Amino acid sequence: MNNILILGIDGYIGWPLAMHLASIGHRVSGIDNFARRRNVRSVGSASAIPIADMDERIEVFKRQHGKNITFYEGDILDYEFLADVMKKEHPRTIIHLAEQPSAPFSMIDRPHAVYTQHNNVEGTLNVLYAMKEIVPEAHLVKLGTMGEYGTPNLEIPEGFFEVEYKGRRDVLPFPRQPGSLYHLSKVHDSANCLFACRVWGLCITDIMQGVVYGTRTREITHERLATRFDFDESFGTVINRYCAQAVIGHSLTSYGRGTQRRGFIDLVDSIQCLTIATENPASKGQYRVFNQLDEVYSIMQLARYVADAAKKIGLDVKIDCLPNPRVEKEEHYYSVQHEHLKNLGFKPTRKITETLDIMLKDLLQYRQRIIEKRDAILPKTRWMGEIVSVQPNMPTGVTA
Amino acid sequence: MNNILILGIDGYIGWPLAMHLASIGHRVSGIDNFARRRNVRSVGSASAIPIADMDERIEVFKRQHGKNITFYEGDILDYEFLADVMKKEHPRTIIHLAEQPSAPFSMIDRPHAVYTQHNNVEGTLNVLYAMKEIVPEAHLVKLGTMGEYGTPNLEIPEGFFEVEYKGRRDVLPFPRQPGSLYHLSKVHDSANCLFACRVWGLCITDIMQGVVYGTRTREITHERLATRFDFDESFGTVINRYCAQAVIGHSLTSYGRGTQRRGFIDLVDSIQCLTIATENPASKGQYRVFNQLDEVYSIMQLARYVADAAKKIGLDVKIDCLPNPRVEKEEHYYSVQHEHLKNLGFKPTRKITETLDIMLKDLLQYRQRIIEKRDAILPKTRWMGEIVSVQPNMPTGVTA
Repeated sequence: MNNILILGIDGYIGWPLAMHLASIGHRVSGIDNFARRRNVRSVGSASAIPIADMDERIEVFKRQHGKNITFYEGDILDYEFLADVMKKEHPRTIIHLAEQPSAPFSMIDRPHAVYTQHNNVEGTLNVLYAMKEIVPEAHLVKLGTMGEYGTPNLEIPEGFFEVEYKGRRDVLPFPRQPGSLYHLSKVHDSANCLFACRVWGLCITDIMQGVVYGTRTREITHERLATRFDFDESFGTVINRYCAQAVIGHSLTSYGRGTQRRGFIDLVDSIQCLTIATENPASKGQYRVFNQLDEVYSIMQLARYVADAAKKIGLDVKIDCLPNPRVEKEEHYYSVQHEHLKNLGFKPTRKITETLDIMLKDLLQYRQRIIEKRDAILPKTRWMGEIVSVQPNMPTGVTA
Repeated sequence: MNNILILGIDGYIGWPLAMHLASIGHRVSGIDNFARRRNVRSVGSASAIPIADMDERIEVFKRQHGKNITFYEGDILDYEFLADVMKKEHPRTIIHLAEQPSAPFSMIDRPHAVYTQHNNVEGTLNVLYAMKEIVPEAHLVKLGTMGEYGTPNLEIPEGFFEVEYKGRRDVLPFPRQPGSLYHLSKVHDSANCLFACRVWGLCITDIMQGVVYGTRTREITHERLATRFDFDESFGTVINRYCAQAVIGHSLTSYGRGTQRRGFIDLVDSIQCLTIATENPASKGQYRVFNQLDEVYSIMQLARYVADAAKKIGLDVKIDCLPNPRVEKEEHYYSVQHEHLKNLGFKPTRKITETLDIMLKDLLQYRQRIIEKRDAILPKTRWMGEIVSVQPNMPTGVTA
């Protein structure tokens, strides 16, 4: 039995992770300031799957699974609040998911960029100081992103690599070339975390996570236990957005030619991996990096998988290529080492095609909710700066 | 004639740089919020050399050199203020020195750490957005630090290096391994700046500067034109601190065995280099890194130079080794490429031993001011966390 504090417990991963860890016998508490709910509303969208508020979530979970989850509403930017919770809970593991997680949201304009780096970097600094002051032996499991690495022309190692340069050798942090001001905030966090391990002897697992998709986990045994599902341009990640498009008959919109390759992981496997990291802590003073992904796909390949899955249930969807709103390489080398979690026992739960079938079925019930917010799907935020109104690939077969 | 805006014009480098650029015919304006003056007071210290306030500086400079400098008091964290100045001045070059520059200050406690990363990272984000919105063709000369690189076991290139890894080659940003939360803030800035060039096409020279020392520049022709000179543990860099110790008969206090090696540069040469960077801008979309230093010394070698210079003017000073308050390697490889500025014409003005003679002579007049603040000299901030009171090596030959 481990004593676990989840920062960002109300989120897409946070809530099902809390349920999973509690259901397998850990003592679980969590913090959230509900920023995700507000931020999704602010871009004119909402979770496709209705979600209960935190009190109800905890109550239904207790009825369904017989376990308690303790919740503290507040902001980790408020150090006194964070320190009070740490003192009260004295966690052995802190899982830090309390960050603004959207690249497009960070690129909307200056205030969104500054908010993202402020929230993420200073929030994480507070976590590091609270650990140092209150629970210096605790293990921090920190959610980073595979996007920190960008797309170098080399195989991507797990955090560090040994190189030779001008006749000398050293093991160095692998250079980061992130693709947005959000991804940069996570790079800044990683550098601050490495420092905290080296200088203060903290113990951190920094998770470079692939893009997550899915609607279900084992503990979602009741509709009021569902986790959120975003499909808007900011908070909807690519597979989730494709699935939402499919169920409303919207074309699946690839950014550019769709040859960009990325690492992906099922929500249920993300939770499996975070559980493995939690139950196999880094050692004192260790800064450990896990590349947390299952498979690498191009976003066009994923569009084809979603179109195929949609066809099986009678939905005929097209694939459209939009002008790429991001500044990113469309043709690039991509090979990622991800052995650490496998060596600790990670085994993918399902094939992606099986998950897509489940997702489409789940989302079909909420078709009307997606239609209501369909204006939030297409990309309006341009990396180069201008915010534009995109009309070229309007939904087909959708009536307002 | 270039139109130059200096952010942090009131600082140790900012003020003499402004005078130099104005005196050679550039149009110069500047911004400062006087945070440096406040921060030095907050650690119980003051500039050894008395400095005039900005109005007087500008007035005396005009009388002495016949040139105008335009000043705006304000904070670059206030975006409206920054944008207004940019719109009014429309600079072709922006020289960004407006950061909290002290590693020990950032390591005092959590509020100082958060202040440093907040001030530096968000201030720089504001500068990047103001450029993008108002002067996208301008050239940003951004002051970073050699400390961003740390002490890898490889030769340090100027920002980027070509590596082979598992049979593939790429040119990558050189990994940063900074030694304090201040140095980390500059690493974060560098990553944000590189992104702004790549995505928005901004034009930036990022200066990895060695440790600066000295009291004089060509334009300091009147005592009311002097630049500040800090010697406290936070804002006094090593050579400046040694010189202040020497003139009050304090032992020269090396941190640890003093075998740490770093790059150094004379104040007058720092200004020479920043002028070269300004007059030879990066091209559109280019992120260019200059390693700005003259020579590499160990801090023990520097203590011996200062002791020798002091002896010549009849000051007998000892060298003491304090327990190192920082977490840093004392024995390490250190070799730095610094060809870019030389290729553009940089030539060191003086030998370090000549500068030390001048500095001691200049500081002797302000001996009493240093004695008054001598409690601020010895390190109380410990990288590991505890703030301690250091008594073991009290000044010798100093009476209160």
